Amino acid sequence: MNHLVIMAGGVGSRFWPMSRPENPKQFIDVLGVGRTLIQLTVDRFGKEFAPENIWVVTSAKYADKVKAQLPEVPSANILLEPCMRNTAPCIAYVTWKIKQIDPEATLVISPADHFVVNTEEFRRVINAGVNFVKGTSNILTLGMFPTRPDTGYGYIQAGDKEGQSEVCQVRAFKEKPQLEVAKQYLSEGNYYWNAGLFIWDAATAEASLREFEPETSALFDKMSESFGKENERAVIDELFPQCKSISIDYAVMERMSGKTMTMNGKDAGVYVMPSDFGWSDLGTWGSLYTQLDKDEHGNAVVGKQNVCIIESNDCIVRASDNVKMVLQGLDGYIVAEDNNTILVCKKEEEQRIKQFSESFK
Amino acid sequence: MNHLVIMAGGVGSRFWPMSRPENPKQFIDVLGVGRTLIQLTVDRFGKEFAPENIWVVTSAKYADKVKAQLPEVPSANILLEPCMRNTAPCIAYVTWKIKQIDPEATLVISPADHFVVNTEEFRRVINAGVNFVKGTSNILTLGMFPTRPDTGYGYIQAGDKEGQSEVCQVRAFKEKPQLEVAKQYLSEGNYYWNAGLFIWDAATAEASLREFEPETSALFDKMSESFGKENERAVIDELFPQCKSISIDYAVMERMSGKTMTMNGKDAGVYVMPSDFGWSDLGTWGSLYTQLDKDEHGNAVVGKQNVCIIESNDCIVRASDNVKMVLQGLDGYIVAEDNNTILVCKKEEEQRIKQFSESFK
Repeated sequence: MNHLVIMAGGVGSRFWPMSRPENPKQFIDVLGVGRTLIQLTVDRFGKEFAPENIWVVTSAKYADKVKAQLPEVPSANILLEPCMRNTAPCIAYVTWKIKQIDPEATLVISPADHFVVNTEEFRRVINAGVNFVKGTSNILTLGMFPTRPDTGYGYIQAGDKEGQSEVCQVRAFKEKPQLEVAKQYLSEGNYYWNAGLFIWDAATAEASLREFEPETSALFDKMSESFGKENERAVIDELFPQCKSISIDYAVMERMSGKTMTMNGKDAGVYVMPSDFGWSDLGTWGSLYTQLDKDEHGNAVVGKQNVCIIESNDCIVRASDNVKMVLQGLDGYIVAEDNNTILVCKKEEEQRIKQFSESFK
Repeated sequence: MNHLVIMAGGVGSRFWPMSRPENPKQFIDVLGVGRTLIQLTVDRFGKEFAPENIWVVTSAKYADKVKAQLPEVPSANILLEPCMRNTAPCIAYVTWKIKQIDPEATLVISPADHFVVNTEEFRRVINAGVNFVKGTSNILTLGMFPTRPDTGYGYIQAGDKEGQSEVCQVRAFKEKPQLEVAKQYLSEGNYYWNAGLFIWDAATAEASLREFEPETSALFDKMSESFGKENERAVIDELFPQCKSISIDYAVMERMSGKTMTMNGKDAGVYVMPSDFGWSDLGTWGSLYTQLDKDEHGNAVVGKQNVCIIESNDCIVRASDNVKMVLQGLDGYIVAEDNNTILVCKKEEEQRIKQFSESFK
C-alpha cells in the first residue's frame, strides 16, 4: 500500500507574528483560502491515499490542532513527538509504526506547510515517483526547478538520467549556498531545490536507518514493543528524547548519494525527479507575497480582512479577522498582526523576523 | 463661590484609533502618566475648587466614565447632554444649574482634554482671572502665546491693555486662518490662540445668553423647573435637543468683542489674559508628540508598552497594554493601536486621520 506521511512539527519562526510556536504556519490559513496549509497539503494528494494510510508526525502540543483540522485522519495515525529531534527520528517513528502493519508499504514523505500551484502535475509526479521506487531499495527525492539563485534552499545536484525515465541519479546534496554559488548552480542547469519531498519503501527507510543511525533504530526497536499498548505514550516520552537530533537528509540521503549500495538484497540508489508543478515553501513573507493576488499598487492582503491601504505600494499585509487596519504611505513593508502582536518592517529585512520575534523574551 | 466647569463632551476624532466615540481622549491616559486627561484637568486646578463646586458637562453615554474617573465629583454635578449641541447649550445648562444654588458664582470654564506644562503658573493665571471678573460683567478668555503659525486654532486679537493689569481688551476673534494669515498674526504680536478657557460670573453668562440666545435661554428656564426633581432627566432629554447647536464663542464672545455693552447694570467687555504656562490642546498625534519624551532617534512611545523600535526615527507609537509591537525601518510615522484597530500613517498626514477612521463605515 502507499502511505502518505506528513511532517508537521515545525514552528515557522520566520512568519512571526502570524506563525508562532503555539500556532505555527501549517495550522494557519496563510493564503486566506479557507483551508490551512496542512489541510491544503492533504487536499493536494487527492484520493490517492485512503485516510487510514495518511500519517501525521507532529509535536505533542499540536495534537489537538491536527485532530481538529484533519478529522478524517485516524487518531492512531497522528504520531506525537515529545520534543523536537529533527526529521530522522520523525521518519524512523513513522517507519517503525507502518512496517508493523504493512511491511510492503511505500512511503511518500511531505512537509505540512508548502504550497503547490499545479496539483494535477503534482499528482502525476507523485504517482510516477511511487512507481519508480515501489519494490526497489531506491530513494527518490523530488527536485524543484529553480527559478532564481535562492540562497535559502539546499540544492540537489543531478547526475545521469536513469534510462528512459524522467529520473536522474543524485550526484550530491548541497547545503544552502552563497549567492555566487547559487548563480553557478543555475547556470549549470542540473541543480534542483530540495523541497523535503521524497518517496521510498518502508523497508528501504528501515534498512537505511539501521545502517546509518543504528542507535536511533535500536531505540525504535524498543519503543515499537509498546506500539498500540497502554504504555506507548509513556515509552515514547521516555525514549524518543534520547534519539540523536539529525535531519533525514544528513543521516541518510547525503550518505547514500553518489554511491552504489545494496540494501535488502537489492541495489539502492538516491535519485531525483526534476519537478515543475509551481512550488513554494512559503518560508518567508516574501515567498508568500509572490503567491498572493496584488492590487494595482502591488499590495497583497492575506485573507479578506478589514484592511484599508492608502498611498502604499508593494506591501504584504495580514491581520486577524477581528482587526481593522488603516495603512497610509508605506512602500515595501510587511505589516502583520496576530493575537495582539504587531510587526511593521521592511520586506527586505524579512530574514531578521525571527530575531525581531525574540525582542520580548 | 468659584466653580470649575469642565466640558467633556468631545469625541476626539483626530486621535483615532486611540480616541473613539465610545472612548474619547479625555477619558484616556494619553500621556501614559497613570491619569486620564480629564483627571489631569481636575488635578491641574489643585485645591482651588471644593469638589461640590466642580461640574462636568458631558454626553449621557460618558456618565459612567466620568463617575469612575472623578469619584470626588458629586453625581448631581455631572450634567448629561442627551445629544451634542456644541458649547453654548452646554454652558447654558451648567449656568442655569449653578445660579439656582449660588447666584454670585464665578465660573471657570475649561475643556477636559488639554495639557498644561506649568501648573503653578496656570493656577496663578486662573486666580488672577477670577479676581479680574468677580463681581463684574466682564468675560475673560485666556489667550495662549502662539509659538508657531498654527492653522488649527482660532486666534484672539488683543487690543489695548486694561490699565496696569495683565489683561487686554479683545478686538476680535479670528477663525482658523490660512498659513499666510497665521504668519501675519504672529508677526503682529497681539494675537493669541483661543484655548477655550474662560472665566465669567454666572450672572454674566446668564445675561449674555438671554441677550444673544433667547430661545435656548427660554428652554433652560423651562428645563430648570425640573432641576433636582424626579422628571429632570426626562425633561432634559425632551427639551435639550431643541437648543440651537452653536459654540459659546460664536454665540456670545464674538458678538460682544470690540463693543461697549451694559449687562446687569455694569459695563460688560470681553478681555483676554495672555498666558504662558505651556499649553497644548493635544488635538492631534503631532501635538501629543511634542509633549512626550523621545528616545535618541526622536521616537516617542505613549506609556510603557511592549514596543520595540528598530532603525526608525521621529515616530510616535501607541499600543494597548496587552499588545506587543515590533517596528523596523519607519521614519516619521504614527503607529497606533487600540482595541483591535491599527493605524500606520505618515505624521504629516495626521489631519486626514478622521477621514481614515471612516474607512470602515
